[in-house]
Amino acid sequence: MSYPQETFIRSSLIPGSLIARRREVVSSNTLSYQLEVLKKTGRYDAFKLQWHPSYSDPPETWPIPKHLFWDSDIGKWIEGACYFLHKQPDTKIRSAVDELVQMIRSAQQPDGYLNIHYTVVEPGKRFTNLRDFHELYNAGHLIEAALAHNDLYKNNDLLDPLLKYVDLLHRTFGPSEDQTHGYPGHPEIELALLRLYDRTQNPKHLDLARYFITERGNSTGVNGRHYYVVEAEKRGDPSHTRMPYWGGNDNALWYYQAHQPIVEQQTIEGHSVRAMYLLTAASDLVGMAKAPDGRLQDAIYRLWDNMVECKMYLTGGIGAIKQWEGFGLNYFLPQGTEEGGCYAETCAAIGVMMLAERILQYDLDRRFSDIMELCLYNAMLTAMSHDGTKFTYVNQLASSDQDLSKREEWFTCACCPPNVLRLLGQIGGYIYTLNEAQDTASAQVNVHLYIPSRYEFQTRGEKVVLVQKSNWPWSGRVEFEVQTKSSQVGLALRIPAWAKSWKITPPSPSTNLEKGYLILPADWVSTNPSFTLDVDISPRLMAPHPYTNQDTLTLARGPIVYVVEDIDNPWVEDHFKSVQLDPMCDVQEKTITDDTTGDTYVALTVARGASILKTQDIHAYPDVEAAELQKVEQSADTVIDELKFVPYYFRANRGGRGQAKVGLKRWHKHN
Amino acid sequence: MSYPQETFIRSSLIPGSLIARRREVVSSNTLSYQLEVLKKTGRYDAFKLQWHPSYSDPPETWPIPKHLFWDSDIGKWIEGACYFLHKQPDTKIRSAVDELVQMIRSAQQPDGYLNIHYTVVEPGKRFTNLRDFHELYNAGHLIEAALAHNDLYKNNDLLDPLLKYVDLLHRTFGPSEDQTHGYPGHPEIELALLRLYDRTQNPKHLDLARYFITERGNSTGVNGRHYYVVEAEKRGDPSHTRMPYWGGNDNALWYYQAHQPIVEQQTIEGHSVRAMYLLTAASDLVGMAKAPDGRLQDAIYRLWDNMVECKMYLTGGIGAIKQWEGFGLNYFLPQGTEEGGCYAETCAAIGVMMLAERILQYDLDRRFSDIMELCLYNAMLTAMSHDGTKFTYVNQLASSDQDLSKREEWFTCACCPPNVLRLLGQIGGYIYTLNEAQDTASAQVNVHLYIPSRYEFQTRGEKVVLVQKSNWPWSGRVEFEVQTKSSQVGLALRIPAWAKSWKITPPSPSTNLEKGYLILPADWVSTNPSFTLDVDISPRLMAPHPYTNQDTLTLARGPIVYVVEDIDNPWVEDHFKSVQLDPMCDVQEKTITDDTTGDTYVALTVARGASILKTQDIHAYPDVEAAELQKVEQSADTVIDELKFVPYYFRANRGGRGQAKVGLKRWHKHN
Repeated sequence: MSYPQETFIRSSLIPGSLIARRREVVSSNTLSYQLEVLKKTGRYDAFKLQWHPSYSDPPETWPIPKHLFWDSDIGKWIEGACYFLHKQPDTKIRSAVDELVQMIRSAQQPDGYLNIHYTVVEPGKRFTNLRDFHELYNAGHLIEAALAHNDLYKNNDLLDPLLKYVDLLHRTFGPSEDQTHGYPGHPEIELALLRLYDRTQNPKHLDLARYFITERGNSTGVNGRHYYVVEAEKRGDPSHTRMPYWGGNDNALWYYQAHQPIVEQQTIEGHSVRAMYLLTAASDLVGMAKAPDGRLQDAIYRLWDNMVECKMYLTGGIGAIKQWEGFGLNYFLPQGTEEGGCYAETCAAIGVMMLAERILQYDLDRRFSDIMELCLYNAMLTAMSHDGTKFTYVNQLASSDQDLSKREEWFTCACCPPNVLRLLGQIGGYIYTLNEAQDTASAQVNVHLYIPSRYEFQTRGEKVVLVQKSNWPWSGRVEFEVQTKSSQVGLALRIPAWAKSWKITPPSPSTNLEKGYLILPADWVSTNPSFTLDVDISPRLMAPHPYTNQDTLTLARGPIVYVVEDIDNPWVEDHFKSVQLDPMCDVQEKTITDDTTGDTYVALTVARGASILKTQDIHAYPDVEAAELQKVEQSADTVIDELKFVPYYFRANRGGRGQAKVGLKRWHKHN
Repeated sequence: MSYPQETFIRSSLIPGSLIARRREVVSSNTLSYQLEVLKKTGRYDAFKLQWHPSYSDPPETWPIPKHLFWDSDIGKWIEGACYFLHKQPDTKIRSAVDELVQMIRSAQQPDGYLNIHYTVVEPGKRFTNLRDFHELYNAGHLIEAALAHNDLYKNNDLLDPLLKYVDLLHRTFGPSEDQTHGYPGHPEIELALLRLYDRTQNPKHLDLARYFITERGNSTGVNGRHYYVVEAEKRGDPSHTRMPYWGGNDNALWYYQAHQPIVEQQTIEGHSVRAMYLLTAASDLVGMAKAPDGRLQDAIYRLWDNMVECKMYLTGGIGAIKQWEGFGLNYFLPQGTEEGGCYAETCAAIGVMMLAERILQYDLDRRFSDIMELCLYNAMLTAMSHDGTKFTYVNQLASSDQDLSKREEWFTCACCPPNVLRLLGQIGGYIYTLNEAQDTASAQVNVHLYIPSRYEFQTRGEKVVLVQKSNWPWSGRVEFEVQTKSSQVGLALRIPAWAKSWKITPPSPSTNLEKGYLILPADWVSTNPSFTLDVDISPRLMAPHPYTNQDTLTLARGPIVYVVEDIDNPWVEDHFKSVQLDPMCDVQEKTITDDTTGDTYVALTVARGASILKTQDIHAYPDVEAAELQKVEQSADTVIDELKFVPYYFRANRGGRGQAKVGLKRWHKHN
């Protein structure tokens, strides 16, 4: 297997593209900004195992102490920092990593145990609340940090203590009678352990990951009963002291994706980040051919399709329900708080990218990579301000007076900001994957993303450099150049499903696509080392599935989803709730370099193709006569001269009043 | 003041109408059916103050014991039974009332206290949880039972113990330093006390009601703090043992309409039944001219309009949110569980009728009576099966696999079934009100509802009989006859806002309406004692406000809202989610006498004016191209030959698979 966390080193982003600029912002601002926050909030020193005043704070969400994720905040920052240090040395950042690693080493208990909360706050209670207390989740993030650290530093200063901790975990958890038959409430360690196994080839690491993945949801795991039910009983949790998101009186095992074994799950349920991390690990197991049988792969496909078809916003956001940060019923996808909610957590969008990437390792199908790109440019990228110092946790598609379109400096539960950091640090690893089949002479580079970059690898002793240049996502023209002495390098190019047309110059031998990829054989590449792909990225109107009850239209151009904001449309007073967009409207494109942010993007404008529904003429009490409504809808009195759109990721960067909307009411003009 | 609980005696329903038949079903089936249930569940004997095994059951919703409302279940049944016994003597029912009254009398404590839970289960803890434990709510229902009992039996057997209890309450609650500054979490006693005051003219009864109404929401009621906050602290409720519907970490005072004094509330919030009972009492205070100032009336109008315009289903149902059985944000009105919920509790619809009736006492405006009729025929009437033995608590507008369209035999929290019983028992009191102004010679009968009936009263020594005959709601023709020697009887007839046309034969002197009422002066009535009102009740198409995100059409005819059911449209597989109704469709009417139920109603049919959206041709992943969607929408491939509608109240009476929908997707044919 290969992992973007490692292969990103082979890709260098060519400066100037949207993604390269975002990466630079993180490198120059976010890394040090987040380091400051870690220091200011007490996280930085937490592995010194001293008492911190905030440890006595009441939980924001019972029973979760506010500091419960601090181990992971540190781990994710170290991991992200290591990715950036590869490309851009920085003494201050490097010495902070060094110091943190020393603190983590010194925090390890003699038997290998390594966790802040259970060492400082509740000693003696380790492994008594796998379901809610993020102990193994934290361990997973530390393992990922250790792998990244090892790659950069080429030493085992962080890896050694983690290997020792994993040994302890391997002794503690497993199928034997004297072992605990549990698994983490928040998956993460599974995917970390599989990557660790790929590095160490230590079968213990594979065994433990596979145990966690396959034991999950076993309704008879502990003396004929479910592990989480028995664990809660042992703790003596009274029934009414359940977490608020549990709602009713059941055990809400679905929240943890533990209501059934994964292989039996029919729909994607529960907390969306947990679901994505879990399936990413499961998918890695499939890719390694280490799944017990074919049912795991079937389940991954089933749950992926259910998610994309029925539970994903057209920004790539998933998880509509705030109460459990997760999935609702099929097609329940309101755009914002006023419509019944919208969550679409940043980490969940990153999780979708992680999962898509794992599946692409064994199934080259654009139904995964299209969504990966959708999440990258929209649900994920919208979570960070243009200067890399403000973030969103929740990514709504429509603002309201209750929830304005804006970003925050930090969060008590701070999973999202360092996740953006990590993701952009390794983004080069998402662009390409390499197939080097044993049984064929040639290597195949699969191009999933059109991010201007230079990709280097060796195949059968020959160095290969693949260069793609473009102004993607603003232009659909991508120039490729393959520099190598080898004649054995083929390519597979993703042709996005939204592209109405595309062409290769000089023409490719075939225009047939295999699952949405154009296969360019080695012999063609060898004779055409330079070629151009042109993808039609002209603006298009999208709609969600009609079962969502969203009779709305959304503008998109290439992978970029657009939004209207009050800063460009200052007349708006109602968060664009009454704006109607004509499905036959003309869309103008204009490249803008924004004065405030210095960012360049393609803005879209609809001239006289939208109107404002005169709601003051609609007297619903509680109903309105249908004919009356149609008359008001069709009035052209309030046609908007120019309705201006900007990319969704760019929202809330230029001040304004926080009014924004992605899906606009469809204008029914001719009924 | 007059009250429908008392004035109903003046009206006799003429047999054969829809409402008369429903009332007969309650009289012949529901009364004795509910008596049986009271006996079977232990409620009947609960005032014997013995331990019942269910008292040890864990609460369904922490911390509410399952038996907490038993006092009110008994009270409401007695009250309803008394209303029916006026018209239809029944020895079995009457002796049950007698026995219950004796049990209640014997349950009273020496100091006047009267409550099952705090006498049997938690003695010594009375008045420690006004917020959640329904102690005063139960008292209110017992007062209402006592008033009804007194009217029928002409003795004080039940009234005396309640008067003694009210004395205790009056000593306990009030503004003095040695009194408790609290008020009930669930209003009810306020409206009961005001009715008691109307009977007794005892100023204590008025004072206590007014204290509860005006003290509510005082943020500095107890030493500068909110009563409920102090009360919860005294109980020592830990913060994480809050009720699930509280959701976040605030005190959720809005749930109880106690976040502000009523006069300051801008929007209708929280539990919908509590809100209606509270405003009914507040409105009675206004009608009695006993409100402290004009702000209470302003608040009632403001909250009423907010409710009807922004938080009411077009069936008259209110309270979209299941979690707190109450109001959501403005325009959040999904039709069913799949769309994000729909609650529309039966008791809440009854509460709307109660509130409308109280306002009509001082403001003759059809904006109240139209809604009262809407609730009667739809949101309320749909809650009982045709034979009066099955009920709904929740009245969704759309079924789903999770929540089929069906009724239940009973509920643990059984507020709704006896509330339907009470309401239909006194329904005659909702048809007419009588104005006898001191300063004018004539009396005016206000006709709010067109229910065939005979209304008798005395004015200045003369007997007056007003007879209205009709086949309402199936026909819009209503024949009136005024039988009296007096020439001083005028009438005011509600002309429903939905009526496109109407006429009076012989013609009335004016066709001007005053707030939707046609005023027929006494001299005209005197010379035209028989006349006919014709109201156009031809079918019409309604839509909810576009901000609801419901791009749907609903058929109505007169006050009756229609629904499609699988029993009439057996091809349906998806709960009618993909059925599209043409706004230009023709609607056929047909009078049906149903074989199974014997009920007669007007059914509606749309021939070739609806189609099925071919969702199998819509591949949203996660979006679909707008043009593609429009193509599928406009396809006429799947036009439905006959789409059949029945009245919403009649749903789930004839078997079937529980699929039903009120609002159908609007068919956009010509975009």
